[in-house]
Parts: sequence; structure tokens; C-alpha cells
Amino acid sequence: MPEFSHINNDRAYMVDVTEKDDVHRLARAEGRIHLRPETLEAIRSGEVIKGNVLATARIAAILAVKQTSSLIPMCHPLPVGGVDVDFHDGDGFISAEVAVRTYGRTGVEMEALTGVSVALLTIWDMVKSAEKDEDGQYPETSIEGICVTEKRKS
Amino acid sequence: MPEFSHINNDRAYMVDVTEKDDVHRLARAEGRIHLRPETLEAIRSGEVIKGNVLATARIAAILAVKQTSSLIPMCHPLPVGGVDVDFHDGDGFISAEVAVRTYGRTGVEMEALTGVSVALLTIWDMVKSAEKDEDGQYPETSIEGICVTEKRKS
Amino acid sequence: MPEFSHINNDRAYMVDVTEKDDVHRLARAEGRIHLRPETLEAIRSGEVIKGNVLATARIAAILAVKQTSSLIPMCHPLPVGGVDVDFHDGDGFISAEVAVRTYGRTGVEMEALTGVSVALLTIWDMVKSAEKDEDGQYPETSIEGICVTEKRKS
Amino acid sequence: MPEFSHINNDRAYMVDVTEKDDVHRLARAEGRIHLRPETLEAIRSGEVIKGNVLATARIAAILAVKQTSSLIPMCHPLPVGGVDVDFHDGDGFISAEVAVRTYGRTGVEMEALTGVSVALLTIWDMVKSAEKDEDGQYPETSIEGICVTEKRKS
Amino acid sequence: MPEFSHINNDRAYMVDVTEKDDVHRLARAEGRIHLRPETLEAIRSGEVIKGNVLATARIAAILAVKQTSSLIPMCHPLPVGGVDVDFHDGDGFISAEVAVRTYGRTGVEMEALTGVSVALLTIWDMVKSAEKDEDGQYPETSIEGICVTEKRKS
Amino acid sequence: MPEFSHINNDRAYMVDVTEKDDVHRLARAEGRIHLRPETLEAIRSGEVIKGNVLATARIAAILAVKQTSSLIPMCHPLPVGGVDVDFHDGDGFISAEVAVRTYGRTGVEMEALTGVSVALLTIWDMVKSAEKDEDGQYPETSIEGICVTEKRKS
Repeated sequence: MPEFSHINNDRAYMVDVTEKDDVHRLARAEGRIHLRPETLEAIRSGEVIKGNVLATARIAAILAVKQTSSLIPMCHPLPVGGVDVDFHDGDGFISAEVAVRTYGRTGVEMEALTGVSVALLTIWDMVKSAEKDEDGQYPETSIEGICVTEKRKS
Repeated sequence: MPEFSHINNDRAYMVDVTEKDDVHRLARAEGRIHLRPETLEAIRSGEVIKGNVLATARIAAILAVKQTSSLIPMCHPLPVGGVDVDFHDGDGFISAEVAVRTYGRTGVEMEALTGVSVALLTIWDMVKSAEKDEDGQYPETSIEGICVTEKRKS
Repeated sequence: MPEFSHINNDRAYMVDVTEKDDVHRLARAEGRIHLRPETLEAIRSGEVIKGNVLATARIAAILAVKQTSSLIPMCHPLPVGGVDVDFHDGDGFISAEVAVRTYGRTGVEMEALTGVSVALLTIWDMVKSAEKDEDGQYPETSIEGICVTEKRKS
Repeated sequence: MPEFSHINNDRAYMVDVTEKDDVHRLARAEGRIHLRPETLEAIRSGEVIKGNVLATARIAAILAVKQTSSLIPMCHPLPVGGVDVDFHDGDGFISAEVAVRTYGRTGVEMEALTGVSVALLTIWDMVKSAEKDEDGQYPETSIEGICVTEKRKS
Repeated sequence: MPEFSHINNDRAYMVDVTEKDDVHRLARAEGRIHLRPETLEAIRSGEVIKGNVLATARIAAILAVKQTSSLIPMCHPLPVGGVDVDFHDGDGFISAEVAVRTYGRTGVEMEALTGVSVALLTIWDMVKSAEKDEDGQYPETSIEGICVTEKRKS
Repeated sequence: MPEFSHINNDRAYMVDVTEKDDVHRLARAEGRIHLRPETLEAIRSGEVIKGNVLATARIAAILAVKQTSSLIPMCHPLPVGGVDVDFHDGDGFISAEVAVRTYGRTGVEMEALTGVSVALLTIWDMVKSAEKDEDGQYPETSIEGICVTEKRKS
């Protein structure tokens, strides 16, 4: 039977981590947003558009990493030590990668995943006028493949 | 050339919506989290686990919907009028659906998408001890298919 | 059977208020914190202590009223229009009264109750060094009688 | 004369705790909300209602514990290490108990008290349609007995 | 005797604005940060540095505008309708200008002033390694001239 | 060429501080708000006005110090250990001084500067009805001289 460390007896709780050791920890997560070819082309060819879309998404992601324990109920507040957000231009999508470092008592994978999610949501918001069809719908836009690519302590 | 309403001249800005009309608006978004079969089975068969995982995710999502304009830089603050969060048990995944209603000047698709993202991240957090392999990695967990399924005014 | 408007089918949700009317609304709540006689005497006789304890509690309460919908999951965000926080010196306690006004779609009693709660918690924090016994416990301090004293629309 | 550690010279300030030791700390607080017999009976007999009311209150309380230093002006930010929220069914009321653990420089009683307060406020919000009389008032609802039941370091 | 609308009888309060009219409102504020010549030269000549410093400051300012009523105790929450942040290269300084638009019951000059302040603080943070002297002090850095340049309704 | 520690390769990032030492740190910042003579006179001669204006500004500043890492994107979250906010009555202005202490991995000058900025903005808000001219403009009000006066570790 799998273990659910945030559930005890009959209820959810925030597990006590005060006995765990402060160690250096790193987590890396990634994900991608699929966009219309015209939108991707505009981002690729236009420095102004690209710069503004990705800078906005990067800063939103860094701020969101620091807010993770306010968003995810059982997540422990942690002294985030460093955050790096990078974007890549893929075939039909833009991918985001977020690395989070801390010196603390629990892992930072939820922080990295939250950063990736907010980076991709912000890209969506920044390009939404380009992605909507004539009925105001988003037939081609989607967020895919959010996963943890690395997690370690040292 | 696609339009980017959050970029003007050479910079990002929060577009002025004060001339738009207050109307009834609805947006619906969905997405899914892929989990190990053992985790899904434990959620399916255990009322306590299921109740706690999904209740925590639902409440996190509702609170996140109300925080959208603090997370997404160019998003307008809106008087969120109603939020409903539902979960479905799929083949290899749990899906989340979030509907947001408002009476306001801009659409609420970013709110619905933020709600879905935080619902799925919270499920991840609630089951993370069950999803980790012996090296502390998440080889099977991923968030997929976050999209807007409906958007309308009336 | 009583009605539970925040529960629908099998789940909690934020009820849709977009069809309700914007009207002027007022709610008034109160509560009291019971303190040691020596603490109350110090507050009564010392202008500096009294001024700082109550000013800090008042401002914390006003800020908390504006944060109510981030603290109470199913609470609707509302354009708070006015807040007044008053304190009275009782027999063995200090009482706080908070009045909240809005022009909006739902009542503001949760805002007033949140304001009273945070006002009283802040008084506790401001006097905690005076209320602790030699073992660091609070044998005499308690918060009592938080209730809604008036609620109306016009 | 009692000591007021948050007041110095003529003004409120946030006392410097950087010279204090990081130690394991626990605080436990409790309180109760008095409700109509019909509301209590509906919560007792209805699994759906009970589950949703208490799960919502529990998660709100855990999130509020982590926000304590944003709500209470002179409260120090602390790396909250664990939170457990429990409810009991009393004679005419529901009681909430919150335990907070940390490894840090100051006690966590304000965190536990904030958690209890928000748990009880959230119960109020979840049952408010059942507690209101025909004039929209709350003649029987009140929050009572919020106190610290245990505080220790180790 | 000047009027102090946030003080009534003997205490601060949040004045009731529910009787005021919803109208279109604009406020514009500006300010400047004085920096070392070498820092200004690096920003002027380096696209990467300039782009990142100013994009970060712009997004921080837009988010801060939306948080004004959580930072300034007596400030009313307002549906911010549009925000534009611009920077100019001056003689020994960078200036920031923030314009805020709303359709609401009170003016938005505090929002514009908060946006300018956070824009300039963020520039300081982004260039602080370049501004510090060998003792880690900031002998040449200062923020000056924060003022409201325009305020109107229509 | 000056160093910009928050920019790496082509992008802004939050520099990793996990390898730095936890030490005692202090930062002190100050600034001033220039006001009309009538406003300054009313503050000087009226205990009620002075008390309320400065108490509100002080508490807003202390809360803002604790929110610095949510406002300034690349700023590290830090366990703020103590905050003291003082005001002085100058010739044509009120000055604010904020001292912040921590035991942590990075300096707290951004926290002290944020505290000063929010203290001065709150004074502006508290006296704005007295500072406005008949056209609702602020011809004489401005914030000047925000700087770091001391920064040290021990």
C-alpha cells in the first residue's frame, strides 16, 4: 500500500519536518505550452514580443516559487536560496525549465513545479489575444508535460 | 500578424479595460495528472485518502482562482462570483475541471486555468510520498492537457 | 433540514453570486479578550502602552478585513468600502467592535468577524510578555464572545 | 509592572530575536463555535456536510498558520514545521484544536491561535445559511474559549 | 485646519466610499533613482542588462499596483483597469513613470505612487552589486522626487 | 565593468545564496516626505493626528518589511529578526528611519528600503485630504532622499 505522508488517521495534516536535517537541495521541473504556428513565429521573429513574453513569464515564475507554501496547503515554507528559469523554442511549443535551490528540511520539487506552471500560465496570458479564434475560444492552446526532471540533496 | 494585447510599443503593460462592459462571464478549464496505478487504486478504494486528497485540492484551487491577478502579472483583478471544482477518475489519471463565473469587464479563463493548475499541483503534493521511486524521483507523475473547454458571456 | 449554500451535490464550492444585486451593506461584529488585571491596569494607566496596543490591533484588523477572501475559502472578494474598529474597556477584558460597509453582491459579516478576530489576536500578541506565567503559559488569557451584532442592506 | 516586549520607548516595534536559540517548539491552542442544534445535527448525521465543512476549515487553518506573520504585525516569520488540526463534537458546539511545531527562535502560540480562529471562522462561513434567522441575523452563533492549552520547547 | 479624512474622533479608520460614484479615473506618478555613472553606462550600452533590469522593475511595479490596498492600511481595494510603466534615461538617474486607470469610487494616486516606489526599489535590487562600494555601502544610490504628476476623473 | 549579480547569461535570475554563511546582519535606511506647512503644523500640534498618522505608517512599514521578497522579484525570503521604525520632524518634512535585523544568508537593505518606502507612502495616504489643492492635485507633496545609511554583519 503506498504511503500518503500528508494524511494521518482520518485527516490531512502538515507533516512535521523539524526532525529532518537542513541540507542543500535542488529540484528541477519542466513543462511546455503548445501554441499556434503564427504565435510561435511572431515570438521567434520579434525581439520585442519574445523579450516581453518571456521576461514576464520568468519573473512571474520566480515570484510564484516563493509563494508555493501559500498556494499548496500542506507545503512547508522554505528559505528559497536560488531560482533559475529558462525557456526553449520547440516544435509547436515553448518549454519552460525551472531550477530551485535551498538549504532546508524538505525538498523543493513543489516549488519548481509551481514555477513551471506559473511560467506557462503567464505565457498563455501574454499571447492570449493571438491564440483566440473568432469565437474567443482557444482550440489549439494547451499546457503539457509538467514533470520533475531532477531532485537531489548534497 | 497576430495581436499581442499585453504588449504596446516596446513594452509589456496591463491593457486598460475600463471602457469594456460589465457582463456575466463564464470560463471552464480542465487538465489531468497521471499517477502510478497503485496510487490511483489507493485513492479509488480508500474513502479517507480520496476525500482528503480531493478536498485539499479543491479548496486550494478555489483560493488560487481568487489569487490569479497576484500570480499572473498582466491579469486584471476581478470580483470572482462563483467557482466550482470537480474531479474525475480516468484511465491512468485524475482529471480536474474548474468553472469560474464573474460579472465583470474581462474574461476569467486565466482564473479557471490557474485553478486547474493549482488543483493538480496539490494532488501531486498530497500523493508525493506514494509517487516517488526509491531514489526520490517521480518517473511516472506528470500534468497534461491543461486547456480551456468553454468561454462565454451573456 | 438546514440549507448549506456552500455545499452542492457531494462537494464544497463557491456559490455563484453574480445574479444578486449590488446594494449597500453593513455588518458589525464584536468580541472580547480576557486579560490579567495587571495587564488591563497597565493599559488603562499608560497612554503609551494603550496607544500602541490598540493602534496596532486596529490597523491589523483593517488590513485583515481586506484579506478575508484569501483566508476563508468560500468567501467572495468584495470591494470593501469602509471599516471602523473601536475598543472598549470592560470588566476583566477589552472588547473590539468592527463595522464593515460595502456596495456589493454579498454580505460582509465574514469580513467583520475576521476583523474582530485579528484585532483580538493582535492584542494578545502585543501583551503576551505580560500575560505569560513563569512557565511561559497563558492561564488567564482567552478570546470570548465573537458574534455578529448587526447585518443589514439598504 | 508587566513587561510589554513589543513596545520600546514610545513606540511599537518588532523585538529582535536574532540572539535567541533555534530550538524545537510546540504550541497547542483550542476554541469552539456554538451553533444551532439543527446545524449540529445536520453535521453529525450527514457525512457529506460534515466532511466538507471540516475539511474546508482544516485546510483554511493550515494555510492561515503559515500566514500568521502577515496578519499579526509584530509576529516574526517562522519556518513552520508541522501543523495538525482536529475537531471535536461538543454539547452545543464544535471545538477546534491546532498544534504547530517549529524549529526556530520564537514560540508559535500566535500561529496556533491564528489557526484556531480561522478554522472557526471558516466553519461559520460554511454553515452560515443554516445559522441565519429569517432576518438574516445570527442570534445563536458565537465563537468562544480561544486559548493556548500547551506551549513548550525541547 | 486641514482635513484628515482617515482620522475620525480619536482614531484612524477606513473612510466609507460606498456613496461615491463609480467614474473613470486616472493617476500618474513619477520618481527617479540616482545611480553611479558606471552603472548607468552599463545599462545604456548593454541591451541584456537594460532589458532585464527594466523588465523586472516594470513587472514588479504592475504587480505592486494591484497589491496597494494590502500595503497601505487605509487604502480601498479597487478594480485596477490598466497600468502602464515607462522608464527614461536621465542625467545621473533613471526615472520611472506609472499611469493607473480604474473605473471606481476612489482615486488611484496611491496605486500609482506604490507602483513607482516598487519600480525604483526593484531597479536598486537589480543593480545593487554594481552600486556597492568596497565596504558594501551605497554612497551614491538614492531614490528622489516621487510625486503625483496628474490625477483626473472623467 | 560593474557586476550585475541578478543577471546571468542573457537573463534575470535569483542568485543562489545557499553557500553563503548565516550571520547576524543589520541594515538601516531612511527617507523623507515633504508636506505643506499647514499639514506639518497639524501633525505637530495635534496628538491625535500625529499618533494616528505615525502609528499607521509604522505598522504598515513593519508588515511591508516582512513582504519584501514578494514585492521585489529577485529578493531572497529571509527570517526577519527585528524591525524598528522611527520618525523625525524636519524642516518642511517628516523623515522615516527603518532598522532591520536578521540572522541569515543575505543582507537586509532591500527590506529596510521597502519599509521606508511604505512608511512614507502611508503617511501620504493618511494626510492626502490635507495635501490636495482645490483641483485634487498634490503640488507640494513629494518623497525624497531614500537611501541606505548603514549595513553591517557581525
